[in-house]
Order: sequence, then structure tokens, then C-alpha cells
Amino acid sequence: MSREVILAARPQGVPVASDFELREVVDAEPAAGEAAVRNVFVSVDPYMRGRMTGVDTYVPGFGVGSSVDGGAVGRVVASRDPRLAEGDWVVSQLGWCEQGVVSADRLRKIDPSVAPPSTALGVLGMPGFTAWVGLEVIGQVKEGETIYVSGAAGAVGSAAAQIARLKGLRVIGSAGTAEKVEWLRSLGIEAFDYRETSPKEALADGIDAYFDNVGGEQLVAALTALRPHGRVIACGAISRYCDERAEPGPRNLFLMVTKRLRLQGFIVFDHNDRLRDFAAEVGPWVRDGRLAYRETILDGIENVPTAFAGLFRGDNIGKMLVRVGPDE
Amino acid sequence: MSREVILAARPQGVPVASDFELREVVDAEPAAGEAAVRNVFVSVDPYMRGRMTGVDTYVPGFGVGSSVDGGAVGRVVASRDPRLAEGDWVVSQLGWCEQGVVSADRLRKIDPSVAPPSTALGVLGMPGFTAWVGLEVIGQVKEGETIYVSGAAGAVGSAAAQIARLKGLRVIGSAGTAEKVEWLRSLGIEAFDYRETSPKEALADGIDAYFDNVGGEQLVAALTALRPHGRVIACGAISRYCDERAEPGPRNLFLMVTKRLRLQGFIVFDHNDRLRDFAAEVGPWVRDGRLAYRETILDGIENVPTAFAGLFRGDNIGKMLVRVGPDE
Repeated sequence: MSREVILAARPQGVPVASDFELREVVDAEPAAGEAAVRNVFVSVDPYMRGRMTGVDTYVPGFGVGSSVDGGAVGRVVASRDPRLAEGDWVVSQLGWCEQGVVSADRLRKIDPSVAPPSTALGVLGMPGFTAWVGLEVIGQVKEGETIYVSGAAGAVGSAAAQIARLKGLRVIGSAGTAEKVEWLRSLGIEAFDYRETSPKEALADGIDAYFDNVGGEQLVAALTALRPHGRVIACGAISRYCDERAEPGPRNLFLMVTKRLRLQGFIVFDHNDRLRDFAAEVGPWVRDGRLAYRETILDGIENVPTAFAGLFRGDNIGKMLVRVGPDE
Repeated sequence: MSREVILAARPQGVPVASDFELREVVDAEPAAGEAAVRNVFVSVDPYMRGRMTGVDTYVPGFGVGSSVDGGAVGRVVASRDPRLAEGDWVVSQLGWCEQGVVSADRLRKIDPSVAPPSTALGVLGMPGFTAWVGLEVIGQVKEGETIYVSGAAGAVGSAAAQIARLKGLRVIGSAGTAEKVEWLRSLGIEAFDYRETSPKEALADGIDAYFDNVGGEQLVAALTALRPHGRVIACGAISRYCDERAEPGPRNLFLMVTKRLRLQGFIVFDHNDRLRDFAAEVGPWVRDGRLAYRETILDGIENVPTAFAGLFRGDNIGKMLVRVGPDE
């Protein structure tokens, strides 16, 4: 037997404990071509909030009463596929559960000697790849430019801010606590606390690109600060995900025309053909410590809802994870 | 002596007669390298409203008490430059005046045997080039796609809708009177009257691109109707130019992310290196009648303010012009 988290109700606003339930499930045996995987880390990610509204977008919505799939890292406990052996570390989409059976085709083996396995859910996984795609493919940022990254202490934001800096950009980043700001400053980011300093003031010098993780007032300020031909890399809008009613968009959107701006949304999995390029560029930076990462880790599958809700309160520095089992 | 229109006050909302004054000026003589030009047609264009707020954007604002420059077509009455002779037709930025002196470097000669001179202010001039750049450079539209053009009976919109159709797109267009809709339908555009049919309903099949001349609710509806990887060609927002307070942007802007949309603003003069390509493609279509155009012409310089204000009430079908002198 193992446990999984199911969606018990559609959240209203920021998710609360009663929106989720723990369920015990009988562990299945792998069939031919499958493996049973015991999760060590499960990922909580802001985009999952959208799936809980029940509306299908680029991913299907989660059903009430159903399990919650998403990124997870674990170890193979039984394999019926020649590519996988017991003990192997793998990344899966098993989601919020302690154990599960997956087709070997849908598992990606990771080498724990290269980087800690948890990084496959963060700086070397989907969030890091999102940051890289946003800068490289969508924003096409260039050395010498100035970029503003909101949510800069989050999993995507901290990767984006640092990758931009390593590519020779001047980087301004916002975060919501003194500790986050201090961390970002230690990384060479011109960080400010948006609860104390208005983005308008912080961006007064002008910017060439804006990596938007937050939406709302940050986007308004960025549009005003963008120089002609600037770009908005529209990645996320965490300030908006828990709104019960859609809030109006920026009042200054017409600046898109007068300043010839480009705003482009993207979903990282459209760009999987660039995964090798990402790994080739960012992997060495992580291994030699030039690209730092932090993780905020809660323990126990029962804490998955708390970790998830914490994303919308800014409880995390860097990648938010839940450790659901031992790593040996 | 000749007359010119000056900006007498900054308009509040839709411009009114008292925002402008007629002034008599003594006609100057051209110096070496200059020509004196008698205007035949002066152009009124929606973007000029923005310049009247006094804020410098991509063009300087107009000063109160100053003349209003802008597109005009006229004939040389005296030349001190070997490239120009008396009687030549020229396009200039002389603006809202009957006559003026200009450096020959800033005049472009036009051949009245190729197309009526007034088209140099419309379908073969800035509005037509704007339509072409929007489709070709910004939207990169392709045969077989569906595009929605708002303000489709205006100078830019009617060119955009027809160029898109000639490039093999399915074209949906909106306009605000039965006469405009009828004209557009006669051109093969699936036109609807936005005062009677909601854009949501008209766009229910989905679209691949949106050529935005209007902003506001049309943009909201287009974002909802756009298919994944769709594009917004952000050209203008005539529904907003006379707002005294900036209105909020679209509530559904986050669809930019989930549908991986791109919204790009542009200013046509950034693309002057493509003028030859435009003339080579669109010129023949106009000459052989495959691309139709209409003009709404008022007579007399004293009617320039009326013509200009009429743009914001939708008084024009096609290009709005004022004839300020005889064409001989």
C-alpha cells in the first residue's frame, strides 16, 4: 500500500487543506515494458493551479476525485523493461503519490553522480528549461541588454535571472522578502523587494526585456519601462492564478504599439527539441557552481497541499519540493 | 497668402471645432534645394490624435498654437532643385495647410499616370504599407489561415483585409455600418456589423491571426478566438484614442501564455526598407483592380477638423481625405 493526494474539491482562491485528500492505494505490479517507481521528491508547480479549475488548456484539467499528475523523481523498485534496473533514479509524471507504475517509455533515467536528483525537477528540469527557453527562444536576449525578472527568487525566476546574467545581461529582479532579495544580490542580481520598492522606481533606467512570472502590476510597470523594440517573455502570472474573477489587463497595453513591443507567451514542452541545447549550456554552469539553486523542501506526502498553497504566498525560495520517501 | 490649420487646444475626447484654428500665412519662396508645393489633398489619420495629447512617443507631440504636419499630396509651384519641376506631383509631410516650402530631399515625386495621386496617401501610401507590413513582417500570415481584421472598412483595414484575401487567407472583417459591411462583402470579405453581431459570435470558428485597428472589446474577443500559436498584429486602437483615461486592458490576456500567442506592435516607418517590396506586390493589384479602394473626401481646408473628428465616429469609408485645392 502507498498513499496519493487526490483533488477533493476545486479550490476557491488560494488552495486550502480541504481541497485535497490522502488516499491509500494498492501498489500495482509492472507489466512488460513498465517499471514500478517509488517517489523520493514530488514537485509542486504554479501551473498546476490552472489545472485545478477543471478547464482544459494546453493540459487537461484535473478531475475532482482524481489523482494529480505532475513532475516527480524517484527510484525504480521493480522493472520489466531492459532499459531500467532496480535502484535507478528516474524522472516521471507520476505526480503527487508515493509510488506508481509507469511505462518505461515515459521515464527518463538520471545520473545522480552528475547532479543531485532533485535538480531534475528544478534548475535542470522543467523550471530551468522554461527559464532558458524564455530567454533564448522567446526573448532572444542579447549581451549588454537589461532584463527585468519578476518572481526572481522562484524556481523559474532564479534560473532566468542567473542565466541572463551569465549571458552578459544586466539583470534586475524582484522578490517579496528580505531573505530572497539578499540571496539574489549575492548572485549578482540587482534585486528589490516589491513590497517596499515600486517596480516603477526600480525600473526607472529602462529595460530591454521583461521575463514575466507574475503578471498584474509588475507587467504594467514593465510595459512602461520597456525601451522601443522591447520584449515581454510571458511565462506566468502567479499573482493572478488564484483570482476567482479575471482581473483587467494592463491599462498601458497600447505602449505595445507606440514602442513596437512584442509580448509572446510560451509553453515549455513545445520546445522539447531544444532540451539537448539547454542541457549542454546550463548543465556545466550548475555543476561548476556558476549557476546557483535553492530548494525549499517539505517532508511527507501529507504536506503536499501545504507546499502547493505556499507557492502562492511566496513561501518558497527557489524550487518548492516535497520529499515523500527516503533517497536510498 | 494661404491658409493652414493650427492646434488651438488639446482635445478632450473626440476633437471638436474649437480645438483648431485657421491661420493665414505669407507664402515663403523656396531657397536653393527647396520647392514650394501647393497641396491638393491633405491626409487625416487616426495616429495624429495621439500627437495632440502633447506626449512625445515615436513622433513628437504637436504643440498648442503650432501647425499640424502630416501626409499631403500636391503639386510643385516653384522649384530650386533640379530634381523637381513646376507641375510635378509630390507627396510630402506638409500636413494641414494649403501651401508650403519643403526641402526637395523630403519630397517624393509620384506619377499620376500610374495611379491617382490621392492613392499615395491611402492604398499605395502609408495606410496601405501599414497593412502590408502588418501582414507580411509582423503577422507573417500564410495561405489557408483565417485572419480577423477590425476596422476593416478603414484605410488600413480595407487594405489589410484585401491583401490577406489576395494572399489566400480566409478573412473576417468588422465595420460599423450596413454600407461598409456591404462594400466589404462585395470584396470577398466575411464582414459583420459589430453594432449588431458580437465579435465573439462572428469569430466562433476560431482565427489564426488578428489585425487589430480597434483595441478594446475587439481585442478581448480576438484573444478568445485565437487558436494556439496565433498572432495579434497590434496596429492601432481607434476605439481608445479619444479616451480621457486609459481603460483597462483585456481580462483574458493570460491566454497569451496558455495559447502561446504573440502580440506585436509596430510602427510602419521602421520598415521603410520594405517599401519597394510593398510597391512591387501591391502596386499591380491596385492598377489591375484586384485590390479596391475607396476614399471619403471633404472639400476645403476649413473642413480638416471635421474630417479628422469623423475618423473617430467612423464617418469614413476607406481613406479620409480633404481636398484643399484644385488638381490642375
